[in-house]
Amino acid sequence: MTLDDARTADRSDPLAPLRDRFQLPPGIIYLDGNSLGALPLATAGKLRGTVKQQWGEGLIASWNEWIDWPKSVAAKLAPIIGAEPGGLLIADSTSVCLFKLLAAAARDRPGRSKILTQQGNFPTDLYVAQGVADLLGLSLEAVPASEIAGAIDDDVAAITLTHVDYTSGARLDMRALNRAAALHGALCVWDLSHSAGALALDLMGDGCELAVGCGYKYLNGGPGAPAFLYVAERLHDALANPLPGWMGHLEPFAFDPAYQPAPGVSRFLSGTPSILALAALDAGLDTFADVAMADLEAKSAALSSLFIAEVETRCGDLLRLASPSDAAARGSHAVFAHANGYAVMRALIAHGVIGDFRAPDLMRFGFAPLYNGFVDVVRAVAILGDILGSGEWDQPRFHERAKIT
Amino acid sequence: MTLDDARTADRSDPLAPLRDRFQLPPGIIYLDGNSLGALPLATAGKLRGTVKQQWGEGLIASWNEWIDWPKSVAAKLAPIIGAEPGGLLIADSTSVCLFKLLAAAARDRPGRSKILTQQGNFPTDLYVAQGVADLLGLSLEAVPASEIAGAIDDDVAAITLTHVDYTSGARLDMRALNRAAALHGALCVWDLSHSAGALALDLMGDGCELAVGCGYKYLNGGPGAPAFLYVAERLHDALANPLPGWMGHLEPFAFDPAYQPAPGVSRFLSGTPSILALAALDAGLDTFADVAMADLEAKSAALSSLFIAEVETRCGDLLRLASPSDAAARGSHAVFAHANGYAVMRALIAHGVIGDFRAPDLMRFGFAPLYNGFVDVVRAVAILGDILGSGEWDQPRFHERAKIT
Repeated sequence: MTLDDARTADRSDPLAPLRDRFQLPPGIIYLDGNSLGALPLATAGKLRGTVKQQWGEGLIASWNEWIDWPKSVAAKLAPIIGAEPGGLLIADSTSVCLFKLLAAAARDRPGRSKILTQQGNFPTDLYVAQGVADLLGLSLEAVPASEIAGAIDDDVAAITLTHVDYTSGARLDMRALNRAAALHGALCVWDLSHSAGALALDLMGDGCELAVGCGYKYLNGGPGAPAFLYVAERLHDALANPLPGWMGHLEPFAFDPAYQPAPGVSRFLSGTPSILALAALDAGLDTFADVAMADLEAKSAALSSLFIAEVETRCGDLLRLASPSDAAARGSHAVFAHANGYAVMRALIAHGVIGDFRAPDLMRFGFAPLYNGFVDVVRAVAILGDILGSGEWDQPRFHERAKIT
Repeated sequence: MTLDDARTADRSDPLAPLRDRFQLPPGIIYLDGNSLGALPLATAGKLRGTVKQQWGEGLIASWNEWIDWPKSVAAKLAPIIGAEPGGLLIADSTSVCLFKLLAAAARDRPGRSKILTQQGNFPTDLYVAQGVADLLGLSLEAVPASEIAGAIDDDVAAITLTHVDYTSGARLDMRALNRAAALHGALCVWDLSHSAGALALDLMGDGCELAVGCGYKYLNGGPGAPAFLYVAERLHDALANPLPGWMGHLEPFAFDPAYQPAPGVSRFLSGTPSILALAALDAGLDTFADVAMADLEAKSAALSSLFIAEVETRCGDLLRLASPSDAAARGSHAVFAHANGYAVMRALIAHGVIGDFRAPDLMRFGFAPLYNGFVDVVRAVAILGDILGSGEWDQPRFHERAKIT
């Protein structure tokens, strides 16, 4: 695709104007929204109001409004991921949310001996699953993604899977795996961190009953944004929060010495949520206003597919695709391997194309369909081709390691 | 004390100029900083920089700085609570931090059967302690504050106590209780939510090895600010995080499938912390710059003692002091009981004096020595006396319950 073709594609893209909902630095092609979403234009104003008016002027009385935010902000997420609105909560970090749901699910199946997960799952998911297994006296079994369905048996107390793999971008078949889990009476907690906000998820249609995910990637909630937690209505009364706290009590402000869980998903709240972080996530979720997720996923697929095709045309002999080539089997990022991927990525960043690197040799490029366009893709690949062709990446400064890669 | 005397006291108070570090609404006497600290003047600017420059312009590269914040922001807290700087972390909510430390402490004493706490502890502390006990197969024993020392025996796996009681304001003897715990080889997790930032804590001197506390009360970190967590160096290698996550790994960005805990207290991190919430707490902690905590505690004692004396002079026959009368046995708030305390508090708030109400009949008044002064106290009690004397509080509008009291 030529740059002119890409301009034409952007002009005829009905989603292209959504880019104006973000502050993107001029001259930068940001292909790392799968790691940290870009700053929505509305965020600073939303935070200013929360800080200056609500906190500064309203002081403690503002809690009469804030108390509803974990549920009211979550309600904006429901249509983005196809969830029952009453089953969603914004709370804590993804790790803490996963801990709560996985422990709750496993304790709901006493007598079973293991927790099942996938090899290569995001590290925190593996650590949390091991932590839950240790606390409950269970074993943790990690199998390759292709073997998950076959590994589910009546001895599995709970399962945790990541819908879109953080390295390869490979997407699991949520519906088939939920069916396999249901067949053996095991509950599965899905990590949607790399799916929510980029793909047309349908939790209800796909039989997903427990899920967590990250607020700071495609949902644009800002660095370390709080996570979300989903419990389908069917399970609301069955599951107990293993980390019960006052915000999940039936009446937090009754200061009852005996714990009585709130009805519904609210019992999965523990401590007081960060209101400033919720305000920023609220602005992040507002960037999805009036967007059909099917359109967004279609654009995501078009962008990542174009990127892959362009790379294969311009520098296919120098890079190896490490993501599924079929968009339907992929999330919203594409990964290429190069023996000096770290240095190549540093050189790309020096030229204003921001992706990231994952050891040992993977360059990751994320496509946030709300603000990335076809010109971004064509320009990024042209720069990548130049860097690889010229060998410009092989300079000492590009080999120097930063703390965060 | 007359209003003129109070003005003189404020003029001669070397801490009085610290009030200029805060945005306080004109006409309001804010005596609820023990629930939600007031807004520091620097917070909005700190957040704007974090959002517009660091997130908006710096994007993912800003993580090279943010990654250190849980420890670097915590380092500002160390002198405020007399802690080893290397033992402090900002992380999660108080409930989640308490869960982690209490479970870690109890698992460090296998073979013992119970967790000990105080009756009337803050509800979330009781719920979390019960949650930990349930997960570990222990029992939870709650005894009156006066019986704690006697209840510690060799069967106690761990203890959790709140230093200053959230209702009465009664202060426990941290040093004596730590000594009793040490004698029986039990670790105690202290909740410092109502102490940190108002009292001259000396965790090192008082033998406090494990603690958590709230960032949004006297520390002025904003609504739902992240909590702090303290582990004395002696225990760094002994205790394991029961909720292990990638941010507590030796090398988070190595994406190691096997968990290896970071050295020191950092292993108690789990998921990604909210950077915006950390930025606000950082500005909150900056309000303590160049303040000697001994001076601050002395002022706190002077304010609460004056409040109690004035109430007893002006309306002592109508109210009952529900806090210790000796300032050394109190935290930084004072509580009075009145059969219609809820309505009296609503009437006070209508007159611009903001305290809060705790069922069944307690009116709580907090004194934040960074921004409350002697004129605040004298004016507040004069208004309280008028409301009680006139019976003005007995109107339907003051009996109507708000969500948050």
